[in-house]
Amino acid sequence: MKKLVVAIGGNAILPAGDAGGAASQRRRIEASCEKLADLVAAGHDVVVTHGNGPQVGNILLQNEESRHKVPAMPLDVCGAESQAQIGYLLQQALGNEFAARGIAKGVACLVTQVLVREDDPAFVNPTKPIGPYYAREDEIIVKKAKGWKMVHDRRGGWRRVVPSPRPVDIVEKDLIVRLVGQGNGNVLIAAGGGGIPVVRRQGRLVGVEAVIDKDLASAVLARAIGWKTLVIVTDVSQVALDYGKPTQRVLDRMSVKEAKEHLAAGQFPPGSMGPKIEAAVEFLEHGGDRVVVTDMEHLVDAVDGKAGTRIGKA
Amino acid sequence: MKKLVVAIGGNAILPAGDAGGAASQRRRIEASCEKLADLVAAGHDVVVTHGNGPQVGNILLQNEESRHKVPAMPLDVCGAESQAQIGYLLQQALGNEFAARGIAKGVACLVTQVLVREDDPAFVNPTKPIGPYYAREDEIIVKKAKGWKMVHDRRGGWRRVVPSPRPVDIVEKDLIVRLVGQGNGNVLIAAGGGGIPVVRRQGRLVGVEAVIDKDLASAVLARAIGWKTLVIVTDVSQVALDYGKPTQRVLDRMSVKEAKEHLAAGQFPPGSMGPKIEAAVEFLEHGGDRVVVTDMEHLVDAVDGKAGTRIGKA
Repeated sequence: MKKLVVAIGGNAILPAGDAGGAASQRRRIEASCEKLADLVAAGHDVVVTHGNGPQVGNILLQNEESRHKVPAMPLDVCGAESQAQIGYLLQQALGNEFAARGIAKGVACLVTQVLVREDDPAFVNPTKPIGPYYAREDEIIVKKAKGWKMVHDRRGGWRRVVPSPRPVDIVEKDLIVRLVGQGNGNVLIAAGGGGIPVVRRQGRLVGVEAVIDKDLASAVLARAIGWKTLVIVTDVSQVALDYGKPTQRVLDRMSVKEAKEHLAAGQFPPGSMGPKIEAAVEFLEHGGDRVVVTDMEHLVDAVDGKAGTRIGKA
Repeated sequence: MKKLVVAIGGNAILPAGDAGGAASQRRRIEASCEKLADLVAAGHDVVVTHGNGPQVGNILLQNEESRHKVPAMPLDVCGAESQAQIGYLLQQALGNEFAARGIAKGVACLVTQVLVREDDPAFVNPTKPIGPYYAREDEIIVKKAKGWKMVHDRRGGWRRVVPSPRPVDIVEKDLIVRLVGQGNGNVLIAAGGGGIPVVRRQGRLVGVEAVIDKDLASAVLARAIGWKTLVIVTDVSQVALDYGKPTQRVLDRMSVKEAKEHLAAGQFPPGSMGPKIEAAVEFLEHGGDRVVVTDMEHLVDAVDGKAGTRIGKA
């Protein structure tokens, strides 16, 4: 297990509930980069992907708040900006960790487009809430007139929902292979926030207002560059059945068949462990060899098979 | 002349005076990418660098306007965001142009840090105005208390000025060489806006609140990856002496010695042609072979020696 696509969850970048300032992101990212550097020091090649929920939410809110002075950017451009915001902090922190340990490897962040299908059913059924809450009725009318789908949220406001189409391919895959494909210890940060969603329309790529699940995108990235191991870093150390119930039990291993059965039985809630296990199944059924699910604390041990949950073909 | 670092000015991305919306940026960028694709079709390898003035200005204003709701990001992070905003639009447009012509080459944008010296004299004498204008006295007092240097502008407001230190090295240069150094037709977008300025402090890279001149950064990038030709794309087709006067005359060629003499004689105004010629001199005195100055319209002809101004060692 040498070449790892490591998909890090929002918690590895920002403490839950934090407003998202640069200082708190830096602190959390520095702690995460110690663990990522442990992986590299242990001889693994790493491509890092990451979530961007709070960051792109903040960027969208900044765009809204100042739209009377500055043209608001569409969601694809805001997503690109969030890739660089997080990617820059990650590449600097990981580079610093390498320097402190005398690891002579480079770190780079590539702005990444991810292809989705224009006929993806998600486009007729937007489900992913993004950006700020709206309370004023006149605002909501304006937004709906723009074609936004708005839903009311129990937290007491209206919110835009956008499609969450399935990722199909990584536009920059050839360059990613050139950069890190052969395994050279350099670390690439790519497909942040699930990548910038683009469709192919009359041969041209066009950005769309959508959000791609970051774990699914990470699985597609790993497949696209021919890497066989996907590591999903979340906020629990192992996958559990009956999560939160008295009968809860954690899993050291799971086959793809078992994973599908548990998914079908509703063991993994949507919006939480569900999409991660779906991404794992997707990956293992399309060329992947193994998926590891764990938290940042147990990352190295989990990759070594001594912690976390390993999902394999059998 | 095969490997070209092409530094494109703000005008190649956004019409002068435009507010900076995504649609106008896309239109201008698409037109510029036709010219860049011409270069690639003619067999050149291209690394693209670009300005980011209006874009990072808008991002700073967005951060200011919403700081009561969202933590404002420091300038280095805003600069990173602007790299991805512009880089994404460029990589998509150039990729589409390649697809339309059947050019099977990739395009990528790398978030780029540029090293500056902490003891650069610019840090004690900030001169580069950035971000929004401030009119209210209480705002200005708050900003000054934060340590911002504010200057009054004849356009009728106070504005923050930041240092403009000289670029020393490109942090991601090894990865850039790996990606495009050997010349493979892939196009890399890097060091946007002069790069994210970082200093080395106790062995660690730390982002600083500064702006690096994009042409100087482009020269340092070309040197760092061993490319010998720097193309500076601006809004005039040729360098002129006595610019704007009845005696104005354009130059087809200039030696580095002549360039320095004209600079010393005040022929090239600061904030305009001056920094470009300084970057050219810097490049030619440190390993570069030639510099071409032209506008987007004459790009291919100028690289072929049939237009523009060529600056050489002798």
